[in-house]
Amino acid sequence: MDRIGIKEKIKSLSRLRTEDMYLNDFFHTWKKSDQEIKAVFEVADILRGMRNNNISTRLFDSGLGISLFRDNSTRTRFSYASACNMLGLEVQDLDEGKSQVAHGETVRETANMISFMADVIGIRDDMYIGKGHTYMKEVAASVQAGYDAGILEQRPTLVNLQCDIDHPTQSMADALHLINHFGGIENLKGKKIAMTWAYSPSYGKPLSVPQGIMGLMSRFGMAVTLAHPEGYEVMPEVEKIAEINSAKSGGTFSKTNSMAEAFKDADIVYPKSWAPFKAMEKRTGLYGKGDFDGIDKLEKELLGQNADHKDWECTEELMNSTKEGKALYMHCLPADITDVSCEKGEVAASVFDRYRDPLYKQASFKPYIIAAMIFLSKVKNPADRLDTILNANLPRIV
Amino acid sequence: MDRIGIKEKIKSLSRLRTEDMYLNDFFHTWKKSDQEIKAVFEVADILRGMRNNNISTRLFDSGLGISLFRDNSTRTRFSYASACNMLGLEVQDLDEGKSQVAHGETVRETANMISFMADVIGIRDDMYIGKGHTYMKEVAASVQAGYDAGILEQRPTLVNLQCDIDHPTQSMADALHLINHFGGIENLKGKKIAMTWAYSPSYGKPLSVPQGIMGLMSRFGMAVTLAHPEGYEVMPEVEKIAEINSAKSGGTFSKTNSMAEAFKDADIVYPKSWAPFKAMEKRTGLYGKGDFDGIDKLEKELLGQNADHKDWECTEELMNSTKEGKALYMHCLPADITDVSCEKGEVAASVFDRYRDPLYKQASFKPYIIAAMIFLSKVKNPADRLDTILNANLPRIV
Amino acid sequence: MDRIGIKEKIKSLSRLRTEDMYLNDFFHTWKKSDQEIKAVFEVADILRGMRNNNISTRLFDSGLGISLFRDNSTRTRFSYASACNMLGLEVQDLDEGKSQVAHGETVRETANMISFMADVIGIRDDMYIGKGHTYMKEVAASVQAGYDAGILEQRPTLVNLQCDIDHPTQSMADALHLINHFGGIENLKGKKIAMTWAYSPSYGKPLSVPQGIMGLMSRFGMAVTLAHPEGYEVMPEVEKIAEINSAKSGGTFSKTNSMAEAFKDADIVYPKSWAPFKAMEKRTGLYGKGDFDGIDKLEKELLGQNADHKDWECTEELMNSTKEGKALYMHCLPADITDVSCEKGEVAASVFDRYRDPLYKQASFKPYIIAAMIFLSKVKNPADRLDTILNANLPRIV
Repeated sequence: MDRIGIKEKIKSLSRLRTEDMYLNDFFHTWKKSDQEIKAVFEVADILRGMRNNNISTRLFDSGLGISLFRDNSTRTRFSYASACNMLGLEVQDLDEGKSQVAHGETVRETANMISFMADVIGIRDDMYIGKGHTYMKEVAASVQAGYDAGILEQRPTLVNLQCDIDHPTQSMADALHLINHFGGIENLKGKKIAMTWAYSPSYGKPLSVPQGIMGLMSRFGMAVTLAHPEGYEVMPEVEKIAEINSAKSGGTFSKTNSMAEAFKDADIVYPKSWAPFKAMEKRTGLYGKGDFDGIDKLEKELLGQNADHKDWECTEELMNSTKEGKALYMHCLPADITDVSCEKGEVAASVFDRYRDPLYKQASFKPYIIAAMIFLSKVKNPADRLDTILNANLPRIV
Repeated sequence: MDRIGIKEKIKSLSRLRTEDMYLNDFFHTWKKSDQEIKAVFEVADILRGMRNNNISTRLFDSGLGISLFRDNSTRTRFSYASACNMLGLEVQDLDEGKSQVAHGETVRETANMISFMADVIGIRDDMYIGKGHTYMKEVAASVQAGYDAGILEQRPTLVNLQCDIDHPTQSMADALHLINHFGGIENLKGKKIAMTWAYSPSYGKPLSVPQGIMGLMSRFGMAVTLAHPEGYEVMPEVEKIAEINSAKSGGTFSKTNSMAEAFKDADIVYPKSWAPFKAMEKRTGLYGKGDFDGIDKLEKELLGQNADHKDWECTEELMNSTKEGKALYMHCLPADITDVSCEKGEVAASVFDRYRDPLYKQASFKPYIIAAMIFLSKVKNPADRLDTILNANLPRIV
Repeated sequence: MDRIGIKEKIKSLSRLRTEDMYLNDFFHTWKKSDQEIKAVFEVADILRGMRNNNISTRLFDSGLGISLFRDNSTRTRFSYASACNMLGLEVQDLDEGKSQVAHGETVRETANMISFMADVIGIRDDMYIGKGHTYMKEVAASVQAGYDAGILEQRPTLVNLQCDIDHPTQSMADALHLINHFGGIENLKGKKIAMTWAYSPSYGKPLSVPQGIMGLMSRFGMAVTLAHPEGYEVMPEVEKIAEINSAKSGGTFSKTNSMAEAFKDADIVYPKSWAPFKAMEKRTGLYGKGDFDGIDKLEKELLGQNADHKDWECTEELMNSTKEGKALYMHCLPADITDVSCEKGEVAASVFDRYRDPLYKQASFKPYIIAAMIFLSKVKNPADRLDTILNANLPRIV
């Protein structure tokens, strides 16, 4: 994309309503309007275009981007750090450890104490059903109260870097990859995407990826198929959202317990392991009671249940059954690759190998998506501001 | 504060002598002149004013701010990071662990090795009486020698982020909060501040907060009352400093073993747990001998002694006895709140609740105080330089 | 150095061929041409000169410098952070822990996932013979493939911050120290440098320092003497490189099993402990088989072997035997100092004491050497670019 392309994108952005994003948080894609979703894509493209033309994308001369991760994370950490850096924010990690003990007074106080110079807070908290999103809301309410009381001189906005319900930076990056791959958001209409469960030897992978994909892709008029073995149901609320979205967008949302059915004639396949929602709910309950023996027992049961479905693997045979045998294979990475990272996994090595470049490309959109979410939450007139930045034409590398 | 207000503050700053702060460290408030203390407040206000007017406060285009914490710290870490970021310095943490084993050659060498690009070093080392300040002096002497020998191309200055004796960034932030609350430094004259011990179920909290408060507030003509149960004496040297300061400033410094007496008609109350100085001295001795059984025994004794004073709590009743029942409640946070963070603590939940916003506001001054200390140690003519920065009028957010 | 001096250095740089450094990695000094080595020294001097004249050395407005350390490191970490900061890059640490388990798919994927906004990756991986360099090559190949496939929008270049074979940032900083000490690279011709083994109570120190020194200093026409007790041989490949270099540069490369012989009439002495290459090779094999008992046994053997050579110490007597008794003493730090850091070590306390300032000065070149390596890998016409930066004349401190 050259400067003229960027200019056009800015013009297109100027037609979208984004006022409600200003000083607001990004929790779930389905809480955002179609125009807001589109604005994120546009800003991400514009920022990428500017960076590729060696134009500085800094919005901030100084300021902090706080990161708060409940578990280890390399990819998300670097995506967030990249997004902050690109905009001129310095990342400061708040390392609270893996425990989820902070509540009430502590959350309120800590949220304010770290935010005196914070422009944005990125949180990843996906480990317990019913917890992550709740925690993020608590942090957001705390800094809002601090801002309203004149304690915080700016309202740090929140970006959900993965919660127990949605994974918006992943699904939005995935969608932008699709938009690029198929040559426009309008070309997604009618495309069949198979969001399917796949076998992994590990246990307890979050539901936020399949839920995020269903919740978002159903907005573009796509034929969204959710496939999983019986017992691997996702949250009913999110299924409902996908149904409503599909109805509105002129797409379809269907469910099946057959991987083959999902793959049949699919334009896009997204095979990935996750844990059953009901089991994860139970696990949260056990955790709350401190019943670690119960958790161990549950884990064993789930691993046993898992082992019954080793045939849920994205094989060459299945790939052959997709549209012209050439469906786009997607994954949020890292994937469990048969004979590479494990004996039996989500995907055959030869399939993964063939799609490595597109998979990495898919991941490359995430820093820009995060930067766009931050940008839109900190700027009232994003099109004007991007125009100013573009015209200033400061080089990223001197 | 608008630009005109900032201009006036800069003019007021220009009348203060700050030459001795240039390339110098900030260890204890009582080592600084009245004009120097005032200059820190002015610069803090100016930086805050500029940031609120979206004016970049960067003094540095690049450079490092080293942080060295002997124990875990969220608040101080973020305050220091905020201060560095605001001025354009990138924070690099030197994680030496909790042990205090480094001496002599190692300190000298490490101090120089980390300082080739360091403009400032912030140290928190408050765990052992007789150790923290001594260590900071050793680091300062090491980098001074390196600078004098032409090894370091700039003299990194030190900011004491809490030592065993003083906590200047806390007490100065507290004072700036009072100045704002009472509408001017001159209005502190005659105000009664009760720095009192309070019960906490934990053990060994540092003396640097009460000592810092006594050592600083006694300079403003205030009626400083130090209250604690018998046996909870602070360092006699700091009591002497408070006496001398009070005599000079036209204030008073008094001591009592009654919390009620201290609260009576107070304008400001600061109830907080700390450990007895004598016991902490003994602990350092045991630590030096590696007598960990002795330390355990001492801890048990102190917890026992503590438990005798559960009635030292900041209750509604005590608050009612203050000036018009409306004394300003202060705390360095986090506080031990009865029925919230513990069964019996330093303050009643209803009192804490009522003062939450002022407490957070109090904390909000710390990043600016630290930034002001750094600024004054790196710039010979701070008023001129701030004028230049103000006139450059670069936006913090584009 | 004033602006005129800097201008001259830039002119001198403009005559050197550095095209092959552009978008390329820095693994071993002996893979670089003489002009490229010289260019690193020139750029380091220029950057140091600019910083000393308070001229901003930023090449980047934003961007990340990734660091990846296999073991704890304070000095290298801060040198790298300083170099990145000086050029405008923000450091992000990738903490992979001390284990060396990542291979193939994982390395390829991780290298790309962290590099979307990365301009440079600094790696220190010196723990296992046959591993560090191999790993770095794997990372470099991964990001090259990502760049070629259009996944990475810039090619992050690698800087070897110490591998199992070479330690180029150390040896180059050491050489720049010598150039400064002796008043020019041409004055190194004919100087005798004794790279000698010395006793340390610890075990398994890397070979990369002696190998790096031999491999580099042999290029300047110096008389390089390698001294060690029998059994402490280094990698034969690197001895070969030193021989070839010496023949080309008009110097000599000799070996001896006598510390006294090496010190005799030396202009420079570099006494330092290292582990025998053969033993380290064996250790890698045991590690590969997970034979930790074998590793323990080997360690005991090596410590026993070590203890036979406690007389390999840099004493005053040995120093007296050097050229006019005034050889320049060098060490990469930290040194094992007899009676200071251990009972019996690499160097006598009085020798170390006398050379402390030159030792610290020696270390001070490393951040600039690293910055120069980065600069030359990111800029096609370094002389032009430095001229632009110099003429822009932006202040480092406002």
